[in-house]
Amino acid sequence: MKQAIEFYFDFSSPYGYLGACLIDDLAARHGRGVDWHPILLGPVFQHSGNSPLVGQPLKGAYAMHDLPRMARYLNVSFTLPEPFPIATVAAARAFYWVKDRDPAMAVQLAKKLLNRFYVEGRDIGAADAVLEVARDCGIDVDALKTALGDAAIKARLKEEVDAAIAKGVCGSPFFIVDGEPFWGSDRLQQVEDWLKRGGW
Amino acid sequence: MKQAIEFYFDFSSPYGYLGACLIDDLAARHGRGVDWHPILLGPVFQHSGNSPLVGQPLKGAYAMHDLPRMARYLNVSFTLPEPFPIATVAAARAFYWVKDRDPAMAVQLAKKLLNRFYVEGRDIGAADAVLEVARDCGIDVDALKTALGDAAIKARLKEEVDAAIAKGVCGSPFFIVDGEPFWGSDRLQQVEDWLKRGGW
Repeated sequence: MKQAIEFYFDFSSPYGYLGACLIDDLAARHGRGVDWHPILLGPVFQHSGNSPLVGQPLKGAYAMHDLPRMARYLNVSFTLPEPFPIATVAAARAFYWVKDRDPAMAVQLAKKLLNRFYVEGRDIGAADAVLEVARDCGIDVDALKTALGDAAIKARLKEEVDAAIAKGVCGSPFFIVDGEPFWGSDRLQQVEDWLKRGGW
Repeated sequence: MKQAIEFYFDFSSPYGYLGACLIDDLAARHGRGVDWHPILLGPVFQHSGNSPLVGQPLKGAYAMHDLPRMARYLNVSFTLPEPFPIATVAAARAFYWVKDRDPAMAVQLAKKLLNRFYVEGRDIGAADAVLEVARDCGIDVDALKTALGDAAIKARLKEEVDAAIAKGVCGSPFFIVDGEPFWGSDRLQQVEDWLKRGGW
């Protein structure tokens, strides 16, 4: 069994959303699975000294122009949601709680959350919004709601973020293919070529 | 006559070098010229709140791994020079002094400077190094040497950098195709597709 592609993203990263829309199909074309890892860019930026794109002069304006253009280029539905950016702690914690019980269901939850935020333009920051989407997936939301308040799930997410930083994850989306790191939705072609050629 | 592609780069930007190696041929395939604009990333970063990649935790390490891999991907010779990064004021000022007299010669000078730095790994920061390369191009180095100390050429470069910032140039390389901005050597495929399709 070939190694799964590690896929890191923040639910509040539009470029991460673009990566999320394409990575499963891309991986499947090369007989690979994808191991989804939502992270929090906040601690990553604290570590790297960066800040969210949107608030940055020049780069923020570029990103606002580039994002819808990139989405059209990749044939992906996209609306910049309001409010943006949002806190994604509840979404990420819920993901890992579900993943530890049913990894495929966790990916389904992530995709529904991303679709709600970037296609429907509806909030996914509040715990209630996350629970609503979880209910649509058939997840036991009473148990999930209790879990979201537990120290255990806070620690679980923190471990994931720390592990990502330790692996060098510096942004969203970030892909690791057989140990090889690729950052950005504009590197999907390189990810595909790496899988095809086994490196270069 | 179709509009030339505007190409912005800093001589001390390795990704800018990768763009410089490919943009002329890419443009020529679509009947376009290229208008080269060396800039200084220092003032751009002051404006945008960014800093050089190399000094950044996480992103710096990623770039050091990505750069040679990207060069191999694009079939471009590349060595990370020492010392790095360097001051590129002399190179950029010399470029514009030559450009105002002979634009094609200025591009030849730029290419020789980039080759010396990123292929031969030899310094291009010092004015003497720039003059040496200019001499190889057949440029009048006595006149250039005098010009490099003039207030006029300092103002000329400052105007170029200010104009680039006003156009939204946020990094190196940065391409503008019929008003459409593309940032990064990883966007060359999009630049090519934009030329091919006239947008999307």
